[in-house]
Amino acid sequence: NNNKNNTEEIEELIPMENFSMVCKGVYRGAFPKKKNFPFLKKLGLRSILTLILEEYSEQNMKFLNENNIKLFQFGVAGNKEPFVDIPEDTIRAALSVLLDKRNHPIFVHCNKGKHRTGCLIGCLRKIQYWSHTSIFDEYRRFSHPKSRSMDQQFIELFDPRKVVVNKRYLPDWPELDLQNLTTK
Amino acid sequence: NNNKNNTEEIEELIPMENFSMVCKGVYRGAFPKKKNFPFLKKLGLRSILTLILEEYSEQNMKFLNENNIKLFQFGVAGNKEPFVDIPEDTIRAALSVLLDKRNHPIFVHCNKGKHRTGCLIGCLRKIQYWSHTSIFDEYRRFSHPKSRSMDQQFIELFDPRKVVVNKRYLPDWPELDLQNLTTK
Repeated sequence: NNNKNNTEEIEELIPMENFSMVCKGVYRGAFPKKKNFPFLKKLGLRSILTLILEEYSEQNMKFLNENNIKLFQFGVAGNKEPFVDIPEDTIRAALSVLLDKRNHPIFVHCNKGKHRTGCLIGCLRKIQYWSHTSIFDEYRRFSHPKSRSMDQQFIELFDPRKVVVNKRYLPDWPELDLQNLTTK
Repeated sequence: NNNKNNTEEIEELIPMENFSMVCKGVYRGAFPKKKNFPFLKKLGLRSILTLILEEYSEQNMKFLNENNIKLFQFGVAGNKEPFVDIPEDTIRAALSVLLDKRNHPIFVHCNKGKHRTGCLIGCLRKIQYWSHTSIFDEYRRFSHPKSRSMDQQFIELFDPRKVVVNKRYLPDWPELDLQNLTTK
């Protein structure tokens, strides 16, 4: 079967678990493993934003260096409900990075791409004026079946107007409105 | 509270259920209702691809006309497992539309944005060389808790090499490879 032979020559791509495009220039997912590197490479990333606390592995640092990808680390403890707080200032700082198109395309991850990533993206959706219903639907789509009420409460209480952005480098997302942000 | 007043002036956006960005220029979700129109408008769409069989509602046609959005209809019967087949030629024709950047940004929908949309996007992922594991994870993320094995089987058996694309207008997605498509 000639067709079959043709297909077999081409490398299959394995995206990170829970991988998805968030909006233009922003992707989300789980911690990239070695098997995901060919896929990750295809994304043509300029940067990666990690929410893990631990030092980045040597293998992953090597990949970043070889592909000229900048690493932003905003370590947040895996939120073990209900006693660990998510640091709002860290989320704000991470959002400033996401809202700077000089860092795009950017890939956001924690370990599973569920809770910490879900919180950060939920807060990004508030900046985009999404209704809470839609934000929580999206949060749960990725965190299922381990969705956490505290994460959703964090998103609900998060105040996007304290996020500092540089007007000049704001992405051209249609939902953005400077009224809702602190500009510099 | 001055902050609160500022926020209230801005209209909250309500994305369609199951809304997500698929890749650059392509969005997916449920049938757009009137409450979703302000959000839909923000996407700045050039076209909508619907997989429903029924005629488009007057309300939605009016929205398309007012916003200069082209409608592509590839009607597929809601697949009632296990006896209704998904027509492969319809899916191929729909993919040719998705793979033509002149139609971008494009929004793909059926009724719930779960099964028919999930099948079409699953087939698109095959063109992008995603592993079946990743394709099915994504399919189930949106169809949960009503995932259908027959949909996943359809995706698995679908042959992307029969999809006809116009080389000149192929989107600049990094995962595409002409080897895997029929070009004209």
